[in-house]
Amino acid sequence: MQTAIVLYDKFTALDAIGPYEVLSRLPGASVTFVAAEPGPVKTDNGMLTILVEHSLEQLPAPDVLLVPGGPGEVVPRAGGAVLEWLRQADRTSTWTTSVCTGSLILAAAGLLDGKRATSHWLALEELGRLGAEPVSERVVFDGKLVTGAGVSAGIDMALALAARIAGDTVAQAIQLGIEYDPQPPFNAGSPRTAPVEVVELLRSRSRFEAEQEALATP
Amino acid sequence: MQTAIVLYDKFTALDAIGPYEVLSRLPGASVTFVAAEPGPVKTDNGMLTILVEHSLEQLPAPDVLLVPGGPGEVVPRAGGAVLEWLRQADRTSTWTTSVCTGSLILAAAGLLDGKRATSHWLALEELGRLGAEPVSERVVFDGKLVTGAGVSAGIDMALALAARIAGDTVAQAIQLGIEYDPQPPFNAGSPRTAPVEVVELLRSRSRFEAEQEALATP
Repeated sequence: MQTAIVLYDKFTALDAIGPYEVLSRLPGASVTFVAAEPGPVKTDNGMLTILVEHSLEQLPAPDVLLVPGGPGEVVPRAGGAVLEWLRQADRTSTWTTSVCTGSLILAAAGLLDGKRATSHWLALEELGRLGAEPVSERVVFDGKLVTGAGVSAGIDMALALAARIAGDTVAQAIQLGIEYDPQPPFNAGSPRTAPVEVVELLRSRSRFEAEQEALATP
Repeated sequence: MQTAIVLYDKFTALDAIGPYEVLSRLPGASVTFVAAEPGPVKTDNGMLTILVEHSLEQLPAPDVLLVPGGPGEVVPRAGGAVLEWLRQADRTSTWTTSVCTGSLILAAAGLLDGKRATSHWLALEELGRLGAEPVSERVVFDGKLVTGAGVSAGIDMALALAARIAGDTVAQAIQLGIEYDPQPPFNAGSPRTAPVEVVELLRSRSRFEAEQEALATP
């Protein structure tokens, strides 16, 4: 079972590493990080560097594709090698998956047209504009397309996928191995449960960032 | 607020990346990955390489120390640069923290003597042998020493720490930003809740691995 995780500059680390930690524990699993250009890839805040050792061409037909999100998604989403590779690799994949705004990249590749899919809660409208049917759920299966909500949802998505791939007992063993018995200190992980002022804080920051980006783009 | 995350060969990725994702979002935060030798550091399964750009000496006095766990912990735990650096850095740190079997390294450095602390559920006995008072809780505060349980517990630990450092609203905004509204597909993340046969599977595998390691050690 070969999983390819596609990295690009300014991806969000946990989007990729959550599912990696789960899927790498499947019996016989091989997880490979790939990028348009092998070499160091920095995360969204520039504080962490992953050394990607394989190009997209070196892995043309993995069993599982996984695309993380992050503010850098605007670049691969605009066209080029990642979109072309995704379209090709999806033809033979068993599962094509994303976490957070990675679903915007899948949608831009045309792989989510008319399909039920999710994304970070702040990106669901954009996901709809790109042709998917946005669903406000943590993990969404539509045939072989599997999408997870924001950042940390990749862990839940990967455990659900592990169960489909290898059965419930193996998935439970992985869950126990990573001691995934979550006890968040607050009930604030969803816009439905977080205090209204916290939701507004993130919405306004998101609008501000979008405006900054629009101004910065020539 | 400077956080140093200490990496070493065969650490477990999510132990480090969960807290990184949370602590890097604190206002004014800087998270730096450090190692005895800067350069590429591979995770426990060899499938992921982090490029560490700073040595321990370059960061002698961070505000927050964080030590992840992983099967490679036996090497830094046995003595040398990491233990010496931890003892020094702990003198001036505001918080000294670990995830999973990272607490075995803190204990070996003498920083958990007589202190309440936790670790991966399979490592709690070993933690006791190293002088700590093992506690089967997900996140344990004892003064400035903060320890998290296995692998994924680093996310809960870091959110609890973020609340202490910057207040509840900031921590809630981080939680909502990473959409940490966990919905594990099974209730199997703790030996108290997982099916008995799954717990036994992990216990026996753990014994097997310990025996293999003992045989491999000259």
